[in-house]
Amino acid sequence: MTTRADAVEVLLFDVFGTVMDWRTSLQKWFQRFGREHNLQADWVELVDDWRAAYQPSLARVRQGERPYVTLDVLHRESLDLLLARYGLSGVSESDRRRMARAWRCLDPWPDTVAGLTRLKRKYVIGTLSNGGLGLLVDLAKFAGLPWDVVLSADLFQHYKPDAAVYRGAPALLARPPSALMLVAAHNYDLAAARSHGYRTAFVARPTEYGPRQKADSAPKDAWDYVVTSLEELAEKMGA
Amino acid sequence: MTTRADAVEVLLFDVFGTVMDWRTSLQKWFQRFGREHNLQADWVELVDDWRAAYQPSLARVRQGERPYVTLDVLHRESLDLLLARYGLSGVSESDRRRMARAWRCLDPWPDTVAGLTRLKRKYVIGTLSNGGLGLLVDLAKFAGLPWDVVLSADLFQHYKPDAAVYRGAPALLARPPSALMLVAAHNYDLAAARSHGYRTAFVARPTEYGPRQKADSAPKDAWDYVVTSLEELAEKMGA
Repeated sequence: MTTRADAVEVLLFDVFGTVMDWRTSLQKWFQRFGREHNLQADWVELVDDWRAAYQPSLARVRQGERPYVTLDVLHRESLDLLLARYGLSGVSESDRRRMARAWRCLDPWPDTVAGLTRLKRKYVIGTLSNGGLGLLVDLAKFAGLPWDVVLSADLFQHYKPDAAVYRGAPALLARPPSALMLVAAHNYDLAAARSHGYRTAFVARPTEYGPRQKADSAPKDAWDYVVTSLEELAEKMGA
Repeated sequence: MTTRADAVEVLLFDVFGTVMDWRTSLQKWFQRFGREHNLQADWVELVDDWRAAYQPSLARVRQGERPYVTLDVLHRESLDLLLARYGLSGVSESDRRRMARAWRCLDPWPDTVAGLTRLKRKYVIGTLSNGGLGLLVDLAKFAGLPWDVVLSADLFQHYKPDAAVYRGAPALLARPPSALMLVAAHNYDLAAARSHGYRTAFVARPTEYGPRQKADSAPKDAWDYVVTSLEELAEKMGA
């Protein structure tokens, strides 16, 4: 393990779910918004439905059914469909924009900032996310994430787990894939990264999708590191 | 002036010359390298010649005479030509690599880190440089530059002042060009940025090219801000 870690120079992080607690943050955001605007709905369910639309909407881009558009566009499209389904068609354009921008106001998990701050001392730390660059930069600013570099799907016009993303990052960083480690809470992401020569670290986020989550509650392969927080990762990687 | 600054959300900085003192840094690096390797040459002249090769080598890419390659490649090619011209053909491959990497070990101007740290409190701060992303990230790590985002020519496969660079940055940042300000020590860069709708700030770096510098010793247009340091820019922009 020590030998492997010695070669790693850059840690790239999945963002939604791995470093940010999107579900609790969005729930709170919508509950407050509902109170302030006198709107009633099952916000917990709406947030879960919104996130559930994520993979199908990405799949249409990944399978070539439509050209690449940023996650901002996909988020907004699925929001519009959901508002109609929840009987909230009367929500104004400006309020819809505010709702879609709630993805820029997420709270990190409690260990995120402390863990990243430690890891940054020894490694280059950055994102490798399906979020757009603007979204990721605004989110980092909101949450105080100390990234050295922000890499996003829109730099490659492809979504993870497309090969273009995992191949593009080492090329931009002027390093071999073996100098990179992907840190993620999702097994599919780590499997793709490993297939392209990255090191891998699994961070368990067993409540990302709420108390009944089953997927990704445990590592599905022998990843280089398996941890329950970014502070534990920093500890294990000597940072 | 105040009205204009209110709309600015992102400050993008030219890097070589504007935030980094490449000339003094490279001179010192080569003088030390020469002592340690018992090599003699006019290092000051070699460094100036190396930088002088920059615009012509970029021009061949910009005019379509060759496909886009990163600045790392251009630096290395011009270094090889210079070593031959300076009677240093015997320098080994590994030492040539170390020399080319000296561009990753530059010192900032004395006001750079303090100025950026202040500006970061109020604005998103990032690069918009002809350096490659890997080079810029390594340089920021070496010099402690607190960027929120690193944007480089290789994201767009074009060098400044090509339009693709100035058009690409606002698209990635999900903002109109008018929300961006370019901060640069070079009038041509600011002129191009302004033509694409950016705000502009000129930072005078009258010794970037040494004591006999004439070009860019003064602003050539009515840029939105004209300052002599990044701390002065922070002061004027209320950061």
